[in-house]
Amino acid sequence: MIGRLNHVAIAVPDLKAASAQYEQILGAKVGAPQDEPDHGVTVVFIELPNTKVELLYPLGEDSPIQGFLDKNPSGGIHHLCFEVEDIHAARDRLTAEGARVLGSGEPKIGAHGKPVLFLHPKDFNGTLIELEQV
Amino acid sequence: MIGRLNHVAIAVPDLKAASAQYEQILGAKVGAPQDEPDHGVTVVFIELPNTKVELLYPLGEDSPIQGFLDKNPSGGIHHLCFEVEDIHAARDRLTAEGARVLGSGEPKIGAHGKPVLFLHPKDFNGTLIELEQV
Repeated sequence: MIGRLNHVAIAVPDLKAASAQYEQILGAKVGAPQDEPDHGVTVVFIELPNTKVELLYPLGEDSPIQGFLDKNPSGGIHHLCFEVEDIHAARDRLTAEGARVLGSGEPKIGAHGKPVLFLHPKDFNGTLIELEQV
Repeated sequence: MIGRLNHVAIAVPDLKAASAQYEQILGAKVGAPQDEPDHGVTVVFIELPNTKVELLYPLGEDSPIQGFLDKNPSGGIHHLCFEVEDIHAARDRLTAEGARVLGSGEPKIGAHGKPVLFLHPKDFNGTLIELEQV
Protein backbone atom coordinates (compact mmCIF):
# COMPACT_ATOMS: atom_id res chain seq x y z
CA MET A 1 0.00 0.00 0.00
CA ILE A 2 2.52 2.67 1.00
CA GLY A 3 4.81 3.78 -1.79
CA ARG A 4 7.60 6.36 -1.79
CA LEU A 5 8.65 8.33 1.24
CA ASN A 6 7.43 11.72 0.03
CA HIS A 7 9.16 13.72 2.78
CA VAL A 8 10.46 13.87 6.31
CA ALA A 9 9.20 16.95 8.18
CA ILE A 10 11.35 18.61 10.83
CA ALA A 11 9.93 21.33 13.08
CA VAL A 12 12.55 24.00 13.68
CA PRO A 13 12.74 26.92 16.12
CA ASP A 14 14.55 29.24 13.67
CA LEU A 15 13.74 28.73 10.01
CA LYS A 16 16.44 31.02 8.68
CA ALA A 17 19.17 29.39 10.76
CA ALA A 18 18.00 25.87 9.88
CA SER A 19 17.86 26.70 6.16
CA ALA A 20 21.36 28.15 6.31
CA GLN A 21 22.65 25.02 8.07
CA TYR A 22 21.28 22.67 5.44
CA GLU A 23 22.53 24.89 2.63
CA GLN A 24 25.94 25.93 3.91
CA ILE A 25 27.00 23.22 6.34
CA LEU A 26 25.30 20.17 4.85
CA GLY A 27 25.55 21.45 1.26
CA ALA A 28 21.96 20.62 0.28
CA LYS A 29 19.65 22.30 -2.23
CA VAL A 30 17.40 24.51 -0.11
CA GLY A 31 14.33 26.37 -1.44
CA ALA A 32 12.77 29.68 -0.40
CA PRO A 33 10.34 29.83 2.55
CA GLN A 34 6.69 29.33 1.55
CA ASP A 35 3.85 30.47 3.78
CA GLU A 36 0.98 28.01 4.01
CA PRO A 37 -1.61 30.04 5.96
CA ASP A 38 -4.30 27.34 5.59
CA HIS A 39 -1.99 24.90 7.38
CA GLY A 40 -0.44 27.25 9.92
CA VAL A 41 3.12 26.68 8.78
CA THR A 42 5.92 28.25 6.81
CA VAL A 43 7.77 25.54 4.91
CA VAL A 44 11.25 25.28 3.41
CA PHE A 45 11.86 22.35 1.07
CA ILE A 46 15.23 20.65 0.96
CA GLU A 47 15.55 18.67 -2.25
CA LEU A 48 17.55 15.46 -1.95
CA PRO A 49 18.14 13.18 -4.93
CA ASN A 50 15.49 10.68 -3.77
CA THR A 51 13.14 12.54 -1.42
CA LYS A 52 12.61 15.82 0.42
CA VAL A 53 13.15 17.19 3.89
CA GLU A 54 10.59 19.81 4.88
CA LEU A 55 11.51 22.33 7.54
CA LEU A 56 8.36 23.50 9.36
CA TYR A 57 7.97 26.73 11.30
CA PRO A 58 4.75 27.97 12.95
CA LEU A 59 2.64 30.55 11.09
CA GLY A 60 -0.22 32.36 12.82
CA GLU A 61 -1.94 31.84 16.15
CA ASP A 62 -3.14 28.25 15.84
CA SER A 63 -0.21 26.55 14.19
CA PRO A 64 -0.41 22.77 14.56
CA ILE A 65 3.32 22.62 15.27
CA GLN A 66 3.50 25.23 18.04
CA GLY A 67 2.73 22.64 20.72
CA PHE A 68 5.44 20.36 19.35
CA LEU A 69 8.00 23.18 19.55
CA ASP A 70 6.83 24.09 23.05
CA LYS A 71 7.64 20.49 24.08
CA ASN A 72 10.79 20.30 21.93
CA PRO A 73 12.36 23.77 21.98
CA SER A 74 15.37 22.64 19.91
CA GLY A 75 13.01 21.25 17.26
CA GLY A 76 12.74 17.65 16.12
CA ILE A 77 11.45 15.28 13.49
CA HIS A 78 7.72 15.93 13.31
CA HIS A 79 6.34 13.39 10.83
CA LEU A 80 6.99 11.07 7.89
CA CYS A 81 4.86 11.25 4.74
CA PHE A 82 4.31 8.13 2.66
CA GLU A 83 2.63 8.22 -0.74
CA VAL A 84 -0.47 6.14 -1.49
CA GLU A 85 -2.38 5.71 -4.72
CA ASP A 86 -5.87 5.85 -3.23
CA ILE A 87 -6.35 7.73 0.03
CA HIS A 88 -9.88 6.44 0.63
CA ALA A 89 -8.84 2.81 0.11
CA ALA A 90 -5.90 3.43 2.46
CA ARG A 91 -8.18 4.98 5.09
CA ASP A 92 -10.61 2.05 4.89
CA ARG A 93 -7.82 -0.52 5.23
CA LEU A 94 -6.30 1.30 8.18
CA THR A 95 -9.52 1.79 10.11
CA ALA A 96 -10.55 -1.84 9.43
CA GLU A 97 -7.26 -2.84 11.11
CA GLY A 98 -8.01 -0.61 14.10
CA ALA A 99 -5.57 2.23 13.31
CA ARG A 100 -6.82 5.68 14.23
CA VAL A 101 -7.03 8.43 11.63
CA LEU A 102 -6.67 11.90 13.17
CA GLY A 103 -9.44 14.48 12.85
CA SER A 104 -12.74 13.66 11.17
CA GLY A 105 -11.35 10.63 9.38
CA GLU A 106 -11.96 12.28 6.02
CA PRO A 107 -8.97 13.19 3.84
CA LYS A 108 -8.14 16.90 3.70
CA ILE A 109 -6.23 18.86 1.11
CA GLY A 110 -2.65 19.04 2.38
CA ALA A 111 0.08 21.62 1.99
CA HIS A 112 0.95 20.24 -1.47
CA GLY A 113 -2.64 20.55 -2.75
CA LYS A 114 -3.23 16.79 -2.56
CA PRO A 115 -5.49 14.70 -0.28
CA VAL A 116 -3.81 13.68 2.97
CA LEU A 117 -4.55 11.85 6.21
CA PHE A 118 -2.61 11.68 9.47
CA LEU A 119 -2.43 8.51 11.58
CA HIS A 120 -2.29 8.47 15.36
CA PRO A 121 1.36 8.27 16.49
CA LYS A 122 0.48 6.00 19.41
CA ASP A 123 -0.64 3.37 16.89
CA PHE A 124 2.66 3.55 14.96
CA ASN A 125 5.60 3.43 17.38
CA GLY A 126 5.44 7.08 18.38
CA THR A 127 5.71 8.16 14.73
CA LEU A 128 3.24 10.63 13.24
CA ILE A 129 2.53 9.29 9.73
CA GLU A 130 1.00 11.35 6.94
CA LEU A 131 -0.39 9.56 3.91
CA GLU A 132 -0.60 11.60 0.72
CA GLN A 133 -2.44 10.56 -2.43
CA VAL A 134 -0.22 11.21 -5.44
CA MET B 1 27.49 17.56 0.21
CA ILE B 2 24.64 15.38 1.46
CA GLY B 3 23.15 13.09 -1.16
CA ARG B 4 20.31 10.58 -0.87
CA LEU B 5 18.35 9.94 2.30
CA ASN B 6 19.64 6.44 2.95
CA HIS B 7 17.13 5.63 5.69
CA VAL B 8 14.91 6.84 8.48
CA ALA B 9 15.44 4.86 11.69
CA ILE B 10 12.55 4.30 14.10
CA ALA B 11 13.15 2.82 17.55
CA VAL B 12 10.30 0.46 18.44
CA PRO B 13 9.29 -1.22 21.71
CA ASP B 14 8.08 -4.44 20.01
CA LEU B 15 9.90 -5.41 16.83
CA LYS B 16 7.51 -8.20 15.86
CA ALA B 17 4.43 -6.04 16.29
CA ALA B 18 6.00 -3.11 14.42
CA SER B 19 7.09 -5.36 11.53
CA ALA B 20 3.60 -6.84 11.29
CA GLN B 21 2.08 -3.34 11.21
CA TYR B 22 4.24 -2.19 8.35
CA GLU B 23 3.68 -5.41 6.44
CA GLN B 24 -0.01 -6.05 7.06
CA ILE B 25 -1.54 -2.65 7.78
CA LEU B 26 0.69 -0.37 5.70
CA GLY B 27 1.35 -3.01 3.04
CA ALA B 28 5.11 -2.44 2.83
CA LYS B 29 7.92 -4.85 1.93
CA VAL B 30 9.38 -5.88 5.28
CA GLY B 31 12.57 -7.92 5.73
CA ALA B 32 13.60 -10.44 8.39
CA PRO B 33 15.12 -9.24 11.70
CA GLN B 34 18.93 -8.97 11.62
CA ASP B 35 20.98 -8.94 14.80
CA GLU B 36 23.83 -6.42 14.78
CA PRO B 37 25.66 -7.31 18.02
CA ASP B 38 28.50 -4.85 17.34
CA HIS B 39 25.93 -2.03 17.28
CA GLY B 40 23.62 -3.26 20.02
CA VAL B 41 20.54 -3.41 17.83
CA THR B 42 18.29 -5.80 15.98
CA VAL B 43 17.19 -4.22 12.72
CA VAL B 44 14.28 -4.79 10.37
CA PHE B 45 14.50 -3.10 6.98
CA ILE B 46 11.39 -1.80 5.26
CA GLU B 47 12.08 -1.30 1.58
CA LEU B 48 10.26 1.62 -0.01
CA PRO B 49 10.64 2.47 -3.71
CA ASN B 50 13.00 5.37 -2.99
CA THR B 51 14.53 4.76 0.46
CA LYS B 52 14.34 2.55 3.56
CA VAL B 53 12.79 2.67 6.98
CA GLU B 54 14.83 0.83 9.60
CA LEU B 55 13.07 -0.44 12.69
CA LEU B 56 15.53 -0.58 15.60
CA TYR B 57 15.19 -2.72 18.72
CA PRO B 58 17.77 -2.98 21.55
CA LEU B 59 20.14 -5.96 21.54
CA GLY B 60 22.33 -6.74 24.56
CA GLU B 61 23.10 -4.80 27.72
CA ASP B 62 24.55 -1.59 26.33
CA SER B 63 22.27 -0.90 23.41
CA PRO B 64 22.60 2.72 22.24
CA ILE B 65 18.83 2.92 21.79
CA GLN B 66 17.74 1.65 25.22
CA GLY B 67 17.91 5.14 26.71
CA PHE B 68 15.81 6.50 23.86
CA LEU B 69 13.13 3.87 24.47
CA ASP B 70 13.24 4.55 28.21
CA LYS B 71 12.41 8.18 27.43
CA ASN B 72 9.97 7.30 24.62
CA PRO B 73 8.24 4.07 25.65
CA SER B 74 5.98 4.07 22.57
CA GLY B 75 9.05 4.40 20.34
CA GLY B 76 9.84 7.23 17.96
CA ILE B 77 11.93 8.41 15.05
CA HIS B 78 15.53 7.97 16.17
CA HIS B 79 17.67 9.36 13.35
CA LEU B 80 17.98 10.25 9.67
CA CYS B 81 20.87 8.93 7.57
CA PHE B 82 22.16 10.96 4.65
CA GLU B 83 24.68 9.60 2.17
CA VAL B 84 27.98 11.38 1.50
CA GLU B 85 30.73 10.59 -0.97
CA ASP B 86 33.67 11.25 1.34
CA ILE B 87 33.11 10.90 5.07
CA HIS B 88 36.42 12.53 6.04
CA ALA B 89 35.78 15.56 3.85
CA ALA B 90 32.29 15.77 5.33
CA ARG B 91 33.67 15.58 8.87
CA ASP B 92 36.23 18.30 8.17
CA ARG B 93 33.62 20.62 6.67
CA LEU B 94 31.24 20.06 9.59
CA THR B 95 33.77 20.60 12.33
CA ALA B 96 35.15 23.69 10.55
CA GLU B 97 31.59 25.09 10.73
CA GLY B 98 31.37 24.32 14.43
CA ALA B 99 29.09 21.26 14.23
CA ARG B 100 29.86 18.55 16.78
CA VAL B 101 30.57 14.99 15.67
CA LEU B 102 29.62 12.44 18.33
CA GLY B 103 32.21 10.10 19.86
CA SER B 104 35.88 10.38 18.95
CA GLY B 105 35.21 12.34 15.78
CA GLU B 106 36.62 9.51 13.69
CA PRO B 107 34.27 7.61 11.34
CA LYS B 108 33.30 4.11 12.50
CA ILE B 109 32.06 1.17 10.51
CA GLY B 110 28.27 1.29 10.73
CA ALA B 111 25.59 -1.35 10.65
CA HIS B 112 25.79 -1.56 6.84
CA GLY B 113 29.55 -2.14 6.83
CA LYS B 114 30.30 1.40 5.64
CA PRO B 115 31.97 4.35 7.41
CA VAL B 116 29.54 6.49 9.38
CA LEU B 117 29.48 9.53 11.66
CA PHE B 118 26.74 10.89 13.90
CA LEU B 119 26.17 14.63 14.41
CA HIS B 120 25.01 16.18 17.66
CA PRO B 121 21.21 16.62 17.57
CA LYS B 122 21.39 19.93 19.45
CA ASP B 123 23.31 21.36 16.49
CA PHE B 124 20.65 20.23 13.98
CA ASN B 125 17.17 21.14 15.23
CA GLY B 126 16.85 18.23 17.63
CA THR B 127 17.53 15.75 14.81
CA LEU B 128 20.15 13.03 15.18
CA ILE B 129 21.87 12.87 11.77
CA GLU B 130 23.98 9.95 10.58
CA LEU B 131 26.25 10.45 7.59
CA GLU B 132 27.21 7.30 5.69
CA GLN B 133 29.88 7.09 3.03
CA VAL B 134 28.51 5.15 0.06
